[in-house]
Amino acid sequence: MVPHLVTALNGPINELEQRILESTPVIERWFRLEWMEHTPPFYTSVDVRNAGFKLAPVDTNLFPAGWNHLTPEMMPLAVQAAMAAIEKICPEAKNLLLIPENSTDTFYLSNLAQLQRIFYQAGLNVRLGSLSPEIDTARTFELPGGESVTLEPLVRSKRRLGLKHFDPCTILLNNDLSAGVPGMLEDLHEQYLLPPLHAGWGTRRKSNHFKAYEEVAKRFGKLLGMDHWLINPMFSQCGEVNFAEERGLECLRSNTDALLTKIRRKYKEYGINEKPFVVIKADNGTGGLGILTVRDVKDIDAMTPAVRERMATVQAGQTVSEVIIQEGVLTNERINAAVAEPVVYMMDRYVVGGFYRVHAQRGTDENLNAPGASFVPLAFEQSAQLPQPGVKPGASVPNRFYMYGVIGRLAMLAAAYELEATDPDAENYD
Amino acid sequence: MVPHLVTALNGPINELEQRILESTPVIERWFRLEWMEHTPPFYTSVDVRNAGFKLAPVDTNLFPAGWNHLTPEMMPLAVQAAMAAIEKICPEAKNLLLIPENSTDTFYLSNLAQLQRIFYQAGLNVRLGSLSPEIDTARTFELPGGESVTLEPLVRSKRRLGLKHFDPCTILLNNDLSAGVPGMLEDLHEQYLLPPLHAGWGTRRKSNHFKAYEEVAKRFGKLLGMDHWLINPMFSQCGEVNFAEERGLECLRSNTDALLTKIRRKYKEYGINEKPFVVIKADNGTGGLGILTVRDVKDIDAMTPAVRERMATVQAGQTVSEVIIQEGVLTNERINAAVAEPVVYMMDRYVVGGFYRVHAQRGTDENLNAPGASFVPLAFEQSAQLPQPGVKPGASVPNRFYMYGVIGRLAMLAAAYELEATDPDAENYD
Repeated sequence: MVPHLVTALNGPINELEQRILESTPVIERWFRLEWMEHTPPFYTSVDVRNAGFKLAPVDTNLFPAGWNHLTPEMMPLAVQAAMAAIEKICPEAKNLLLIPENSTDTFYLSNLAQLQRIFYQAGLNVRLGSLSPEIDTARTFELPGGESVTLEPLVRSKRRLGLKHFDPCTILLNNDLSAGVPGMLEDLHEQYLLPPLHAGWGTRRKSNHFKAYEEVAKRFGKLLGMDHWLINPMFSQCGEVNFAEERGLECLRSNTDALLTKIRRKYKEYGINEKPFVVIKADNGTGGLGILTVRDVKDIDAMTPAVRERMATVQAGQTVSEVIIQEGVLTNERINAAVAEPVVYMMDRYVVGGFYRVHAQRGTDENLNAPGASFVPLAFEQSAQLPQPGVKPGASVPNRFYMYGVIGRLAMLAAAYELEATDPDAENYD
Repeated sequence: MVPHLVTALNGPINELEQRILESTPVIERWFRLEWMEHTPPFYTSVDVRNAGFKLAPVDTNLFPAGWNHLTPEMMPLAVQAAMAAIEKICPEAKNLLLIPENSTDTFYLSNLAQLQRIFYQAGLNVRLGSLSPEIDTARTFELPGGESVTLEPLVRSKRRLGLKHFDPCTILLNNDLSAGVPGMLEDLHEQYLLPPLHAGWGTRRKSNHFKAYEEVAKRFGKLLGMDHWLINPMFSQCGEVNFAEERGLECLRSNTDALLTKIRRKYKEYGINEKPFVVIKADNGTGGLGILTVRDVKDIDAMTPAVRERMATVQAGQTVSEVIIQEGVLTNERINAAVAEPVVYMMDRYVVGGFYRVHAQRGTDENLNAPGASFVPLAFEQSAQLPQPGVKPGASVPNRFYMYGVIGRLAMLAAAYELEATDPDAENYD
């Protein structure tokens, strides 16, 4: 399954691929040194878009679901990476408590079964503790493949969180805390809590992430001697927007206009014959909700009441007031004529797999993380770490995936910077 | 490709497999804690034999060749493990100097190309420096797959070893130093030398390894509540044997007799209806040379002059005087009627792959590491880390391979103990 890159203009990406391949030892050493200074997030998934002339991350998830979309061939890499992660953080750990989203959707439960399998195999007893009030007693859900997943109610004591007869030394969140941090998770000083609470959307802001990513992209661009715009989506932000009451839209208009102008300038510089667009989304996480594609400032004023309502609230019913306006990156990859974007999965500092998110009903400039999407697992496990030197740029799938793995890791590094900058417990030397 | 286990008596191994699978988190945690106290060898391969009633390592190689027999699917695991190893030992490393055996055999050169690929991908510039006097200028060898390997002469300065215009901070030996430590490798205090010189056969003794392995096997047996004999080959040793002049054979006779008696007792205990045998080999490494299968003490006296001569010298022309007498472990696995034994490959603490060594002309109680052997790569990459819980013992290939990976790692742990005990620079608190 080789996705087809549908674009006449792929010179810049082929050049980037070439540069990245030639520089493998330099790149890997650079990452190695970065990870000495910065702690990678426990696990990360990154949505990447390849426009042919530009390749950039558009979303970095620190509580990735979708592990069930990785193929069995990718699992050993995930297990090995999980072993490395645990060994560094809590080698003496016996029990791992996994705290999921409240969803009992079959796909999501399959994701939990996969995570449970990975960490079991890495040497931990894994059980699932739900925050949902509906799980007031242990409930087992059967999955299509014959597997099952058991959700249990959490038991909080003064100092520790666990389950009945299960006292974990490590707690892993697979819940992005969109609704804020539940009291149950606060003041746990005796147990490892991964990722930290400030990685949740109660604290996280996309603009912080992409600010950190810009810094990473600039340094990486310098390392490879290339324009960082080729891998960096430009953005700006507005702090006080109320879609429902149409307040703060002036900020949105002027920033959108300025950003469209900047993109137009870049397109001209590279001779790109595409229509620039920006994507407006909530700064504090969306899970694919409340995303608006804007090609012209007039689009903002032309929002219908339905669109306005959709933009006004995101996941977990939070009201949107902070907004990020991001340079839109076309996805010019197709699988059977459907628009596709690669998603890179990482555990600790390692790329362990990935898949293509495919959406037949969406356009190249639209968000694909929406109902109707399907998933095509791809052989990242072979390719992300094994490029084929000597093959013509753009012609080799492994080479293209190695590049995706590099971009995914740049976004992960940005997340590491971001978490350091927003750590409430960090000592501040400013 | 599923090897067939040809034996009526596989109860003990199925029970062991069952026990190992049930205990996965306990085993993985135990390894994790062991690796906190003990440094794994940089890379290791272990020959394992499955007799159906017993499963044991018979040889542990700290300078493994044969990496070319691993399939492309296994490479990402090797790369990831290499990244982890480098990151711990020398994260700032740019250049790696690989020192091979003097062989220019195509298979061996393919092994070097594979190692070069793994470490390049892990982020190092890799070049090959030969100890051979024949390599007095850079020589490039073409390989069947279209690849090539360049061997260059080593350049030694007062304090450092390198190549012309190549100053590595890390030196990796793929040469087992059978002929002793060359002066060129001595007194290198500024560079990392991996594995350490005392891992070479100039210092190493199989008896030290199996003494350490016995300790490991006992502790592992206790952990799982099982007789450690099921995974531990018994052995004894003789210090002053001269095959050519027939001196020291009395020690050989009495130890062989005593060992055969001990094996017979164990066979009786487990109701094993096989003829016990021992394997006599040089204590300081053989590379498959000078190995004698003995079923009766009389076999020792019946050695022909040709066999005596073969036993008297090993690799690199060293004279044998120290000898290990090891409990013979049948290999009861077959691929297309040919006798097969699994070989487990590890990098740092991780199982990254393996293959079956197959020999059509050899018996179940003979050494398979001999001319005429062929290699069948096996999907260790999936199976060594991904057992299938709930499958009947003995029926699942992944489960069997997970068990092989555990045994391989026990032998690797024994090598870690062994290297600590024989480290000339270690502080001695005795």
